[in-house]
Amino acid sequence: MAVTRVFFDASGSSPLTNRVTDALRAGFADGWADPNRLHSEARRAQSLVDGAREAIADVLGAQTELVHFTPSVNLAFERVVTGVYAARRGRDRIVASGIERDAALDAAEFASPGTVDSCGVDALGHLDVAAFDSLVSNPATALALVQHANHEVGTVQRLDAIAESTSRTGTPLVVDATASIGHIDPPQQWDALVANPADWGGPAGIGIVALKPQTRWLPAWPEGDPWAPGGISVPLALASAVALQERLEQQQQTAIRLSSYIDEIRAVLSLLEGVSVIGDPVERLPHVLTAAFMYLDGEPLVTRLDRAGISVGSGSACGKASFEPSRVLAVMGALTHGNLRIGLHPGVTRDDVTRFLTALPRVIKDVKSDMGVYGS
Amino acid sequence: MAVTRVFFDASGSSPLTNRVTDALRAGFADGWADPNRLHSEARRAQSLVDGAREAIADVLGAQTELVHFTPSVNLAFERVVTGVYAARRGRDRIVASGIERDAALDAAEFASPGTVDSCGVDALGHLDVAAFDSLVSNPATALALVQHANHEVGTVQRLDAIAESTSRTGTPLVVDATASIGHIDPPQQWDALVANPADWGGPAGIGIVALKPQTRWLPAWPEGDPWAPGGISVPLALASAVALQERLEQQQQTAIRLSSYIDEIRAVLSLLEGVSVIGDPVERLPHVLTAAFMYLDGEPLVTRLDRAGISVGSGSACGKASFEPSRVLAVMGALTHGNLRIGLHPGVTRDDVTRFLTALPRVIKDVKSDMGVYGS
Repeated sequence: MAVTRVFFDASGSSPLTNRVTDALRAGFADGWADPNRLHSEARRAQSLVDGAREAIADVLGAQTELVHFTPSVNLAFERVVTGVYAARRGRDRIVASGIERDAALDAAEFASPGTVDSCGVDALGHLDVAAFDSLVSNPATALALVQHANHEVGTVQRLDAIAESTSRTGTPLVVDATASIGHIDPPQQWDALVANPADWGGPAGIGIVALKPQTRWLPAWPEGDPWAPGGISVPLALASAVALQERLEQQQQTAIRLSSYIDEIRAVLSLLEGVSVIGDPVERLPHVLTAAFMYLDGEPLVTRLDRAGISVGSGSACGKASFEPSRVLAVMGALTHGNLRIGLHPGVTRDDVTRFLTALPRVIKDVKSDMGVYGS
Repeated sequence: MAVTRVFFDASGSSPLTNRVTDALRAGFADGWADPNRLHSEARRAQSLVDGAREAIADVLGAQTELVHFTPSVNLAFERVVTGVYAARRGRDRIVASGIERDAALDAAEFASPGTVDSCGVDALGHLDVAAFDSLVSNPATALALVQHANHEVGTVQRLDAIAESTSRTGTPLVVDATASIGHIDPPQQWDALVANPADWGGPAGIGIVALKPQTRWLPAWPEGDPWAPGGISVPLALASAVALQERLEQQQQTAIRLSSYIDEIRAVLSLLEGVSVIGDPVERLPHVLTAAFMYLDGEPLVTRLDRAGISVGSGSACGKASFEPSRVLAVMGALTHGNLRIGLHPGVTRDDVTRFLTALPRVIKDVKSDMGVYGS
């Protein structure tokens, strides 16, 4: 009998639900045409995009015309950071925490090479608010880039305090909400926002930027649509909106259930020698957990769990660079050889959690034995 | 009884076939995971991308590892033009014909603002080979950007003569094959190539770049994958390869059939007063035709045909700017108020052609009457 696999790496991607799959099918049937034409097929495609924008804008608390699809999440960061930066002529520094995701820091470095001021965080992953305030008080600061919640450890930032500083100094606050939307309520404080549909159960291959009316922005690209020159995939946009709707309808219940699973996993992991669970245990995403292993590499843990039918993440949340310890954990001061990252999607059951917790001790023992680490 | 619509705007997009739709469904079922992870779901997604790359590379006559997906066709142009340009340090000019598509010229202008040398074309749309040779002989020329076939008028360039100049001068030749692949045999002469799956019946929202082994290229972007930071949609990649395969299996027969339809339409249009069909009538894409109207605007023609159930294109092939006359036609010296652009996909039948040719005279008469143009 085939045993179904357990997918515990749902940060940035998860299996598509039937409703999302149906939206994709409808999108490809009705939205294959290029919306930038004049005929009925184009208008139908355009109306699907418009509907998706409106639905997503509504969730974000944004104006529909200030919500833009981009062909990828990384491009969303690139376009919004370079554009807000360009509009702040005469200022050349970007403030960002050290635990921002690679795509955000790469965009900052791309917009303003060598002038990114890294703001420290405490051991739970919260920004040092005093340091942040001092950095944005520098008149050379063009913008601040802060995540709503961390994609690896789940810590939710205290955006109220952060926004107080950016608002006092008139610094545009670009909020990375790529790990939070669909899991917890969207952030209230932002001048520009980046979101990732694949993280809330939508398809990969599309990103979202939202701007506030007061946010000045200059296009870096000469063409008509500066956010997505050449357009985006209409079906992916439609499915993104449907996936978000589906998640929101169950957000509260899902958060309570997944959060209890995470608490359970956290409790078990915390009892293991040389293992520490990183991040704020309370002010956190409901579905994410990262554990640091003092003596074990992340890759063999992932590989052996995979063989046991369980998918988890390791290393930094992006890229195959599992051999590199996570930058986020290093910045947070967590001593770690390897780490194990868990992201639960709404389809996860208590049985899945039990299977994981049952398999883990055996897997850890096998990895230790492979590495020649004995005892405990 | 509902009459099915006639879609004659298949340049850059066309209705998806069942086989492509099936590939998409399979892709979303098996390729939803982020390929950049270590578990089985990621490897399955990666293997779908690898298979798609290999199949497409095979058609292009490229090495699989030198074929790259990008999140859009415009980004394919941006990345390859800026990258090849950057690798030619010390040279700062780009040679391009005036009838290249907007995405190509925008990328050139982005890479090298104000230093794009426009090469002229003759009345049929063929590059002035002597002028081209002289432009690429300028030691300041970093690269040349030439289309394989024109997306509006269908003229196929004589790449043999062009490649002789670029090869003699050691100038990298970037070939825009976004209008030709899947319709005629792929070009043989290129150092870098850009392709558009949506043009051969695949989904929109993905682009392709191929490089030859000798082509030097420098990434403009700091991240791991310089072609698609953050990745691309796996299902779109898979469906792109399947669509290309499907087109190729019938390429010869489809070309003969669609070409005969185009000849028929061309013959009828040529008889109309004030109408000229633009482009090479022989060395052309089988499925594309553009007619210039001396006294009529393009937009009302498209709109009235649309009401009659027939979708055609107008203006430049990209964007809603139907009020602007086509730049391609202007460069070719065609006097035109408006134009009508036709692109046939393999699903088009003789009945569709008859419906179009029957509706057209009435539509022209109505547009003339609306505009207050009488007679003829």
